[in-house]
Amino acid sequence: MKEPPTSLFRTPLTPLSFLRRSASVFRDKPAMLHRGRTTTYAELAERALRLARALQGVGIQKGDRVAVLSPNTPAMLEAHFGVPAAGAVLVALNTRLTSQEIGYILSDCEARTLLVDSELAHLVAHPRGELPCLKNVVTIADEAPARPTGPGYAAFLAAGPPDGASLAVEDEDQLISLNYTSGTTGRPKGVMYTHRGAYLNALSQALELGLNAYTTYLWTLPMFHCNGWCYTWAVTAVGGTHVGLRRVDPAEVFRLIKEHQVTHLCAAPTVLIMLASHAAEHQIALGQRLHIATGGAPPAPEVIQRLESLGAAVTHLYGLTETYGPHSLCEWQPAWDGLPWAERARLKARQGVPDILSLEMRVVDDAMGDVPADGRTMGEVVMRGNTVMAGYYKQPAATAEAFRGGWFHSGDLGVVHPDGYLEVRDRQKDIIISGGENISTIEVESAVFEHPDVLEAAVIAAPDEKWGEVPKAFVVPKPGRLPQPEQIIAFCRERLAHFKCPQAVEIVAELPKTSTGKIQKYVLREKEWSGHDKRVH
Amino acid sequence: MKEPPTSLFRTPLTPLSFLRRSASVFRDKPAMLHRGRTTTYAELAERALRLARALQGVGIQKGDRVAVLSPNTPAMLEAHFGVPAAGAVLVALNTRLTSQEIGYILSDCEARTLLVDSELAHLVAHPRGELPCLKNVVTIADEAPARPTGPGYAAFLAAGPPDGASLAVEDEDQLISLNYTSGTTGRPKGVMYTHRGAYLNALSQALELGLNAYTTYLWTLPMFHCNGWCYTWAVTAVGGTHVGLRRVDPAEVFRLIKEHQVTHLCAAPTVLIMLASHAAEHQIALGQRLHIATGGAPPAPEVIQRLESLGAAVTHLYGLTETYGPHSLCEWQPAWDGLPWAERARLKARQGVPDILSLEMRVVDDAMGDVPADGRTMGEVVMRGNTVMAGYYKQPAATAEAFRGGWFHSGDLGVVHPDGYLEVRDRQKDIIISGGENISTIEVESAVFEHPDVLEAAVIAAPDEKWGEVPKAFVVPKPGRLPQPEQIIAFCRERLAHFKCPQAVEIVAELPKTSTGKIQKYVLREKEWSGHDKRVH
Repeated sequence: MKEPPTSLFRTPLTPLSFLRRSASVFRDKPAMLHRGRTTTYAELAERALRLARALQGVGIQKGDRVAVLSPNTPAMLEAHFGVPAAGAVLVALNTRLTSQEIGYILSDCEARTLLVDSELAHLVAHPRGELPCLKNVVTIADEAPARPTGPGYAAFLAAGPPDGASLAVEDEDQLISLNYTSGTTGRPKGVMYTHRGAYLNALSQALELGLNAYTTYLWTLPMFHCNGWCYTWAVTAVGGTHVGLRRVDPAEVFRLIKEHQVTHLCAAPTVLIMLASHAAEHQIALGQRLHIATGGAPPAPEVIQRLESLGAAVTHLYGLTETYGPHSLCEWQPAWDGLPWAERARLKARQGVPDILSLEMRVVDDAMGDVPADGRTMGEVVMRGNTVMAGYYKQPAATAEAFRGGWFHSGDLGVVHPDGYLEVRDRQKDIIISGGENISTIEVESAVFEHPDVLEAAVIAAPDEKWGEVPKAFVVPKPGRLPQPEQIIAFCRERLAHFKCPQAVEIVAELPKTSTGKIQKYVLREKEWSGHDKRVH
Repeated sequence: MKEPPTSLFRTPLTPLSFLRRSASVFRDKPAMLHRGRTTTYAELAERALRLARALQGVGIQKGDRVAVLSPNTPAMLEAHFGVPAAGAVLVALNTRLTSQEIGYILSDCEARTLLVDSELAHLVAHPRGELPCLKNVVTIADEAPARPTGPGYAAFLAAGPPDGASLAVEDEDQLISLNYTSGTTGRPKGVMYTHRGAYLNALSQALELGLNAYTTYLWTLPMFHCNGWCYTWAVTAVGGTHVGLRRVDPAEVFRLIKEHQVTHLCAAPTVLIMLASHAAEHQIALGQRLHIATGGAPPAPEVIQRLESLGAAVTHLYGLTETYGPHSLCEWQPAWDGLPWAERARLKARQGVPDILSLEMRVVDDAMGDVPADGRTMGEVVMRGNTVMAGYYKQPAATAEAFRGGWFHSGDLGVVHPDGYLEVRDRQKDIIISGGENISTIEVESAVFEHPDVLEAAVIAAPDEKWGEVPKAFVVPKPGRLPQPEQIIAFCRERLAHFKCPQAVEIVAELPKTSTGKIQKYVLREKEWSGHDKRVH
């Protein structure tokens, strides 16, 4: 490897240094296990450096964007090191987007090179001329070498000499990646991550989750999602072992957990519900060794309790694409250890406090004043500091708007409890205002969720002559169950103030979701509000 | 607290932020237990901020030096946050120095304020006029309010309002502390630590030792020693509990371990020997919960094995005052778990690899080329990067000399094993050259150490007509044992090449040591070499 730039006592912070160290310290240890293949740390570093040189070989220069469209494969992990080692900016694309959406992002970031998994190649079959910046498309044959749209990744890598590149950067504030937000309205925006921010957030995850050389991490979370919440870098930092996964199939997940003695995985609550249901059906115990980090949407206490009762340890993380993924966590207090399960789950369902390296988070009113820590007064969650994005790519106006008042505005609404812990109650646009009273849809969903027949639930504001808006619940029942709407309403009334309870419950087979698994409440709302004059949302 | 300075997405790195967070997240959790008193995190932060304001009240300005002479008490921990929160530079003084040595350091760093524990007040009774810069001396009454030499700490603190200061800095590269090296020759030099370096090294320790909110850390290591290897900041970062200790008395150490369910402690090998002997004598099991980090001098494999056989988990750290204390560690490979004890102890006695945040360390020949990783070729250990000092205070020539070739020269000699792990074999001046062959005194000491009657051992070069130099061992026997010199020589010959074995063994009651517990080999050498023409050392 080439000598990295440094001053005597000040080295630029970069996650590339994690691979540099692990390739030396854990050279023969498995860095990644995938489909029967093992990549050691020495091999991962060599392949990342070859990728860097191969990219430079096709003209990639410092600051150029290189896009990747791939499931959680070795090539995808390699790109997280090889692309920045070339001095370029990684754009990991959401594999669930349409061809049109992908075309928009490739055009917006002016990607010069694209690495694409052969299974997804059909998503990037754009007509010539539509993406004038895109000079190279390299096809990764991970599953089946079907329909290659360009030269193969293996040959591309082989063309890159392993020397001449280094796992270092000159400036820790340079960009390491762009992560496009899937946003329900408007065009997606490219969130800018720096080497410094990615380094610090990866360390944060390693520290808070207690990762070490004994860690085996299963990739249930897409690496394209905030660079896998920075676990692409964090697991590499400690010399842990990544376990690849092309898609989340519960049976396969549990098979891999058992086969590789998986210690950690991350997943959104919807995925956890799926896993918990499968485990319950097939009477699979998760075991104390498995640590699950969840986030991306507020998990209901019931979901946490289900998983912990199966034996897993759950950590609740909170953050956004704009905060490198996780920014806060429900930091567990040793004093809570002795509490009853239900109480612990309720405490843990709160979003909590900024992690050790993130530090700055507030809940503010419209005048940017802190809301009282009374567990009742809602405000908007705002953050700043090292693990907040450097802005939206090429969007100074949107960036200025997001950072108004000197803080990044998350759009999440929450309360601060007397112990200082944040609880997110709603997205700014998901709040229900019924007869002048604010109702948190999340609070209502949590109540619906406790019903033993409920698998998934979404609550939205429905129009009402008298109250303006009232809560309405959409419920997916558990397999073989068919709860009656009035049962669920009665169940909620035992738990919530009546005005907060759903006035209507609709039993549905499934809920509309975004490509990242978030429930698309606006789809539900559209239906309810069509034909009404006053559209609150 | 005052608003800290920050840009939108770049906050200066400082260990002060650790206390700021823990005071919010762990407000009622014990930050420190000492002599029956509990200080919560909220109280620690309040006291640190009061100290900062009180210091500003007596004229302390940004960059001024504030010295502290104290055992491991709450006031000493408070100074690690309060002094930098005032914008000042902390100078924690070695409590085992003479009054004259302390006077030199106070003069060299031009300390304006001194906080001194009443028990040590006699060490700073310098005549007026000798220290013109020193404007204020504040006496801390921790044990007994004997002989106060100035206003009391309690009153000083009470005078500082809790607001108007903040646990933040404007520039992460500003100095946080000076740590004077005790060096066996020449005047001590002030090693400059920055906020950024201290922050990163503290995180390193927290990550590598797996510290978290369940950590209870016993202060067997002096806080004046590299700011307690940065554990003053690291334990605070995770919201762990500090347990104070005025002096290392083995019975008291074991009492506190039991009383407070201590999970972690750090100590030099000489202290570990003392603890292991006491535990063996009194049949005390240490238990799997206790993690011991050792460093400061190479521990013999025998010492590691003794402690691990008592049930403790030992981590071997390596570093110098110039590297914020620990810089490297013998990173444990999961693949080594199944090896026999003796083999594991031998592997663990090696200094290892740079830790996750330190990264850059090499072993080089005179031309700054890497020595081969053959486990035989000796070279000097050099380091650079974020966790290497910013230089010696007011000593540009000594700094340039230490950083010649762009790397900090440790003065430690070692080999690199084929697996990339460093093993320190000697200090540059401790090597024995016998008949043209290099002999590592540490290697010889390790062999002597294995003898069941040996408590402590030091090996130096003694003059020899034929070979120029030969190894000579000084041995402190275990209580009640009296090994014969020829027995020890024969014992070594079963383990080492004959030319490496001591030609002479002297049984002594104790070994000469520096104030930090390092064996003063030059004292032993003086005696051996007096009257000889050729003085190799």
